[in-house]
Amino acid sequence: MAPVTTLEAHGCFGGVQGFHAHDSRAVGLPMRFGVYLPPQAQAGPVPVLYCLAGLTCSEQTFAIKAGAQQHAARHGLALVTPDTSPRDTGVAGADADWDFGTGAGFYLDATREPYARHWRMESWLLDELPQVLAAAFPLRTDVAGVLGHSMGGYGALTLALRHPGVFRSVSALAPICAPAEVPWGRKAFAGYLGEDASAWAGHDAVQLLAGGARAPGPLLVDQGLDDPFLASQLQPERLEQACAAAGQPLTLRRHAGYDHGYFFIASVIGDHLAHHAAALAG
Amino acid sequence: MAPVTTLEAHGCFGGVQGFHAHDSRAVGLPMRFGVYLPPQAQAGPVPVLYCLAGLTCSEQTFAIKAGAQQHAARHGLALVTPDTSPRDTGVAGADADWDFGTGAGFYLDATREPYARHWRMESWLLDELPQVLAAAFPLRTDVAGVLGHSMGGYGALTLALRHPGVFRSVSALAPICAPAEVPWGRKAFAGYLGEDASAWAGHDAVQLLAGGARAPGPLLVDQGLDDPFLASQLQPERLEQACAAAGQPLTLRRHAGYDHGYFFIASVIGDHLAHHAAALAG
Repeated sequence: MAPVTTLEAHGCFGGVQGFHAHDSRAVGLPMRFGVYLPPQAQAGPVPVLYCLAGLTCSEQTFAIKAGAQQHAARHGLALVTPDTSPRDTGVAGADADWDFGTGAGFYLDATREPYARHWRMESWLLDELPQVLAAAFPLRTDVAGVLGHSMGGYGALTLALRHPGVFRSVSALAPICAPAEVPWGRKAFAGYLGEDASAWAGHDAVQLLAGGARAPGPLLVDQGLDDPFLASQLQPERLEQACAAAGQPLTLRRHAGYDHGYFFIASVIGDHLAHHAAALAG
Repeated sequence: MAPVTTLEAHGCFGGVQGFHAHDSRAVGLPMRFGVYLPPQAQAGPVPVLYCLAGLTCSEQTFAIKAGAQQHAARHGLALVTPDTSPRDTGVAGADADWDFGTGAGFYLDATREPYARHWRMESWLLDELPQVLAAAFPLRTDVAGVLGHSMGGYGALTLALRHPGVFRSVSALAPICAPAEVPWGRKAFAGYLGEDASAWAGHDAVQLLAGGARAPGPLLVDQGLDDPFLASQLQPERLEQACAAAGQPLTLRRHAGYDHGYFFIASVIGDHLAHHAAALAG
């Protein structure tokens, strides 16, 4: 296994916020990720909460803007913030759009060229990164939760529904609930998976729930009502309906006066950390 | 008085984080600033805490990275984050250095050309901005504190020492304590005030204290011991000595494992908000 290179390390709430890179076998390129180690990690391995960011973000965005470390320090959870796509791929046009390609990996393995070679985010996150993390940091990678924002919220929901037993807790902030039905998701699925929509169902939380998939526990989802993408891209009512039909416990909170950005995320992230700590810590 | 233009507004911890601009008479150009209004501002005017950022920062940096709004919301304080210099000044070379010119206004009024016309940060902050704020927002601008980081920490200390009665509380994070003695300060003072160092003493916290100036109450200063600028630029021991000699109450906390960045600031900002709330709120 290729070694982890530490690019930055900063003291933070009694622990350490690091940013790292490794040569990913799954992606075929260097991949970056952040790790926040809480103070409890000095005494032994701690559970892991994967925090998946949205379109245009890097491994630093959530770590810098969400204000989650203070809560992770209180609960004794590590935070892992993966980058949102491969970088410097040499794929023509990959940097042209803000909602596709670079910074928009959609947490899946692409099957369509020219993306199939490097856009293998699901394999990286599920198969490779946990081993890399366990070898390099004091982490209990077998005790893991996942949360995400926007594209990352879609990622948290679908990865948990697609991989039973991997995550013990799931939550999302302003997730893309039914990607196969909205412009961001349709563009990504067509580009990464091809035009045949039958391949998309396995990456759509609403369709996964309808097909029998269940989250490992109750879902917590927060959504701002001033979010400009609410009606066009996010559609939490579809998740609400799918959970109700499936008997999947869901707490969906709608917040007047909040938009899609990190000032919203910071305002509610403490509740998400508590949600995950209840399943992961202690 | 020219109107305030709101550029952004985001719900945040029950209040609103806004970013605004106005045509500044003092600076002769548009100037930007952030205002966080806590939920208490919906019921009536609230006290103001000015938060002065460091080199290269804008009016957004502290608002995005420090995680101060949650504490401001708890204490009922507004946060005002001014930009760190005039922008788009047309002054040749003003964008050439990261530690002088654009993004490096040093919270003073320049007397030397070509900076004297627009680099009038002290007049903007002390004389003009409070009036602009009071006219546009529910703020008790007569009940104000000031804090800052690095260049902004120098600004908080010197503005409070230079203007008795304006601020009721002062604190700083990794401030430039003796700017007349270190490279960042000497470069700025020479460029903005001229080579005659006698003009610099009035902008140096250590010299101001030695000259009889006093802060309105106890000073709170936090400093990371892994800060790469500690010995060369910041020198808190000089402030410590000056306060001891002057009988100026000071709490100086040195933190092992913390550097100069916002992960450090976020880790201690709650204590600073409590320090100011004790003087401003209730």
